[in-house]
Amino acid sequence: MKTSEVSKFYYFFPQTVAVIGVDTNVMPAAWHTPISAQPPLYGVLVSPKRYTYSLLNRKHGFTVNFLEHSKAPLIARIGSTSGRDTEKLKECNIKAAPADRVSGVILLDSYAAYECEKFAMHEYGDHFLVVGKIVLIYYNEGIINHQGIVNENIVSPMLYFGKDRYITIDPDTLAVHKRE
Amino acid sequence: MKTSEVSKFYYFFPQTVAVIGVDTNVMPAAWHTPISAQPPLYGVLVSPKRYTYSLLNRKHGFTVNFLEHSKAPLIARIGSTSGRDTEKLKECNIKAAPADRVSGVILLDSYAAYECEKFAMHEYGDHFLVVGKIVLIYYNEGIINHQGIVNENIVSPMLYFGKDRYITIDPDTLAVHKRE
Repeated sequence: MKTSEVSKFYYFFPQTVAVIGVDTNVMPAAWHTPISAQPPLYGVLVSPKRYTYSLLNRKHGFTVNFLEHSKAPLIARIGSTSGRDTEKLKECNIKAAPADRVSGVILLDSYAAYECEKFAMHEYGDHFLVVGKIVLIYYNEGIINHQGIVNENIVSPMLYFGKDRYITIDPDTLAVHKRE
Repeated sequence: MKTSEVSKFYYFFPQTVAVIGVDTNVMPAAWHTPISAQPPLYGVLVSPKRYTYSLLNRKHGFTVNFLEHSKAPLIARIGSTSGRDTEKLKECNIKAAPADRVSGVILLDSYAAYECEKFAMHEYGDHFLVVGKIVLIYYNEGIINHQGIVNENIVSPMLYFGKDRYITIDPDTLAVHKRE
């Protein structure tokens, strides 16, 4: 099939969910990506309609939190409310600690998280790309394997699969294909 | 654990693999994301060291191809060579058709693909963000469910999990959590 009806380009899923923290507010984002290795940069797309956008304009950094699949109900609840109206952390009973170096929170339920200093903000279409320089990393002890990367038998990352669907990986499908 | 040793921030995995086509060359990328809904924009990170980068500078568009987990050995092989030295499509025996509207190829093994016109290129750290406007979408008939989104029981998207590891989703873990 080929179509020039491009308004629904929902073929890129699944994507991990990143919970973005600015000030005392949090927002789940499915549109995010690493940007640069050196310096270590991470990018997230934020609509200017979101309360998080107005906070990012005022603050000098943010946090990026990765949670397991089992926390999807919490993420759906966070995504249902705006920080303009409610104190989400309290409302959703989210355990969080203030970040060390930036204005944001580290979710205690995350298996890994970054603290990012604001590096760039750039408008593309109906979103802003917010690029942060990673200055501090948190991770749960025991989640990484001997290579220093996430162990698929221990962590079940939360993946967003579009239209309120959440899914995770099947550890039995792990395959290693070395580049020559 | 908390560390300011931030050079290895490998906690964002897994990510779907996107095979980027420019001219007759193809490159697998794990760093990519939707950028904007209206206009429909898709972004991919490309190192200026890559042959694909020099092609993107000269050409006015590119393709984004999504393949299933079973094609991971092919992707590892594509990622092992540079289009500077070889005609990858021929070398790796990749079946492809020229794109309609841009200079690139559509992989016949992909379950979905976009044709993108170059919209912006912007340097951040050691990579360039290349933003494309989606102008044409391809997808295999039968892969989508009644909501028009990818059916987890039919497609096993290829996810890159870092350090030459590939993995896919477990359809049995699909959960729907509606936002209120």
